[in-house]
Amino acid sequence: MSESISEQITAIGQRARIASRALMGLTTEQKNTILVGMADSVDKNRKAIREANDKDVADARKKGLSPAMVDRLVLTDTRMNDMITGIRNVAALPDPVGRILGRHTKENGLEIQKRAVPIGVIGMIYESRPNVTADAAALCLKASNAIILRGGSEALRSNQAIADALISGGRDAGLPEHALQLVPIRDRQAVQALITMHKYVDLLIPRGGEGLIRAVAENATVPVLKHYKGVCHIYVDAGADPKKALTIVENAKCQRPGVCNAAETLLVDRSIAGSWLPEMAALLTARNVELRGDELAQKLADGILPATEDDWYAEYLDLILAVRIVDGIEQAVEHINHYGSGHSDAIVTENPEHQEYFTRMVDSAAVYVNASTRFTDGAEFGMGAEIGISTDRLHARGPVGLEELTTYKYVVQGTGQIRE
Amino acid sequence: MSESISEQITAIGQRARIASRALMGLTTEQKNTILVGMADSVDKNRKAIREANDKDVADARKKGLSPAMVDRLVLTDTRMNDMITGIRNVAALPDPVGRILGRHTKENGLEIQKRAVPIGVIGMIYESRPNVTADAAALCLKASNAIILRGGSEALRSNQAIADALISGGRDAGLPEHALQLVPIRDRQAVQALITMHKYVDLLIPRGGEGLIRAVAENATVPVLKHYKGVCHIYVDAGADPKKALTIVENAKCQRPGVCNAAETLLVDRSIAGSWLPEMAALLTARNVELRGDELAQKLADGILPATEDDWYAEYLDLILAVRIVDGIEQAVEHINHYGSGHSDAIVTENPEHQEYFTRMVDSAAVYVNASTRFTDGAEFGMGAEIGISTDRLHARGPVGLEELTTYKYVVQGTGQIRE
Repeated sequence: MSESISEQITAIGQRARIASRALMGLTTEQKNTILVGMADSVDKNRKAIREANDKDVADARKKGLSPAMVDRLVLTDTRMNDMITGIRNVAALPDPVGRILGRHTKENGLEIQKRAVPIGVIGMIYESRPNVTADAAALCLKASNAIILRGGSEALRSNQAIADALISGGRDAGLPEHALQLVPIRDRQAVQALITMHKYVDLLIPRGGEGLIRAVAENATVPVLKHYKGVCHIYVDAGADPKKALTIVENAKCQRPGVCNAAETLLVDRSIAGSWLPEMAALLTARNVELRGDELAQKLADGILPATEDDWYAEYLDLILAVRIVDGIEQAVEHINHYGSGHSDAIVTENPEHQEYFTRMVDSAAVYVNASTRFTDGAEFGMGAEIGISTDRLHARGPVGLEELTTYKYVVQGTGQIRE
Repeated sequence: MSESISEQITAIGQRARIASRALMGLTTEQKNTILVGMADSVDKNRKAIREANDKDVADARKKGLSPAMVDRLVLTDTRMNDMITGIRNVAALPDPVGRILGRHTKENGLEIQKRAVPIGVIGMIYESRPNVTADAAALCLKASNAIILRGGSEALRSNQAIADALISGGRDAGLPEHALQLVPIRDRQAVQALITMHKYVDLLIPRGGEGLIRAVAENATVPVLKHYKGVCHIYVDAGADPKKALTIVENAKCQRPGVCNAAETLLVDRSIAGSWLPEMAALLTARNVELRGDELAQKLADGILPATEDDWYAEYLDLILAVRIVDGIEQAVEHINHYGSGHSDAIVTENPEHQEYFTRMVDSAAVYVNASTRFTDGAEFGMGAEIGISTDRLHARGPVGLEELTTYKYVVQGTGQIRE
């Protein structure tokens, strides 16, 4: 690795660590003032941000990036407004730091308190959407964490302009120096240096495609909170209300197929498949959904193409649905735990024993009974805002909001107690 | 790596993953019956365990292991009894799985529950004390986790005999097959295979010397919950009650110097040092504590040797104490955050503002006001039992008991709700 890149990243890390200590001393009111100052500053610097973004977009077009990627890069007025509103919303949310998570007093009079505290320094590695710069900064700072941002190189000018606005507005309102830093280096070696800097970075949150997340997870020595993908299932049980099942599957597949909590695989109990699947297939076909099923599914309903083993693993993010007929709930649960991604999975059934079995045995971040998987989301779960959805098992699982951006310490208050 | 070792470890991992699913289906009563069966079986197999241990001890002596290491290896009657009692105690503790950590009902009627669930498969890597085999197995299984144990090669026969007793007693009482496995391979390649098997292992807990923990942390792709060391501080503030300060420092240093929550460094505010330090130094010297201080400390009290920079980082685990005079609480906090290990640190002061500043700004797992650091311990913190003390920041910080061996999932109960 180039020594100068490594040195630059180390300097960023050292400054972030110092800033994280200063952030520990801020009150809720001070943090909210800073966030409002940051939102105002983005508002005032719309022109500079827009100009930087125009250059990024022009370069992206010149380089022949796909229309979808260019679209994600563009900062429209709506996206700019959303970014500003987003920061203001975070300012209005309750402070996750200082919450008392547990408290007890021992016989000797010692009071032991478990108190929510910041994680420290968070490294955010993300791809083309420049709005993440503001969204992630606001959430991390509200939880009193220092943040190091490393966005996609194709969005560097946009990200830099947003970060400049955030920093200048924040600084005027009392933001500690270097609490928010953007890595200004396009070279990928900067990422490698960042994800192995466990002395100064406490947590990495990668957001983007599976390739990015896998590369970060496999090479990092800093703990990573990852969200690989959402291969979400709906299992229609023998005890399902057929109408509810139709509505839930249609919603989970069609309402917004391009997101991680959309359904990708439909599992149907053999005993209900003959009577229920034809109507479901007709409804989905009418909504332009391509169905790929196992042999029995193809026999039972019209218009189902053959599925291959790969289909059971697929996150289509599109109007495609894999369909498999299973022999009862145990096989359904086995399928989900084997092929799924641990994101969100639902059972449709009126049978209380099957509800209990499914929610206990399906090993996913969110498990649904008689509802669409589309509800897995920070806002829907009452968190106000989210930085992502974790399919990891440790520290945070499912939507990651402000509380998940804190850790805890024990504060023990005594009057001279010693251990006998 | 030898293909056969890699294959053997993979097979162990696959079996553990299957067992972890079966464990999800067990009730509290079933788990407690299994634990009691395991305790009874260790009791019944004392002779076989003792014979295996005798062989390990004889080998260790032949190989010239240090007396301290041989002592840790020996399974005395007391240690055997403690091991059996320990398993019974874990059986009697409340089940950490299934706790409702949060619950709210949305306007549309969806009930969102946050529920404690097992982590999955835990890999435990430890050094010579064979009792860890039983202690760790009991805690992990009580939290419905499958466990893979890899003890020190010098204790392999002892660990194998204990594991055999646990497995046979557990199996007769309903323990799922392969829920508890011991890696029967002395070769260190087995550890490398285990710590990179993120497909089948969800968490690693290394227990032992700093070298072991560092090696695991730096080479693992599986998340690690580590406990590096305890460089614990007592800061005697200008506002300290001098008598409390004497008692607390004496206790934190002398009551059991060989453990991680014993004090290693004493920080004294300059304004109180002249009047207080001489008495403290005399008291500690009388208790055979070697004092190593900065220049001012050496001037202020008799019998203090010069400290070097290394002393501020040292975990002595012995009757040695580093002493530094600081210019007020801010310098004390800076010292602790710079040189400390994030374990346990205490302030002695009657000044409420300084109490608040210290507990907020010291970035450690446990922060004490007017009490000895020696209280950082699972039993003292009301956890019943602990598997270790984490100096990590994510997932679990401080003592790791049964609750820290669980994660959570969201269980969402609906009546047909879909997303608009």
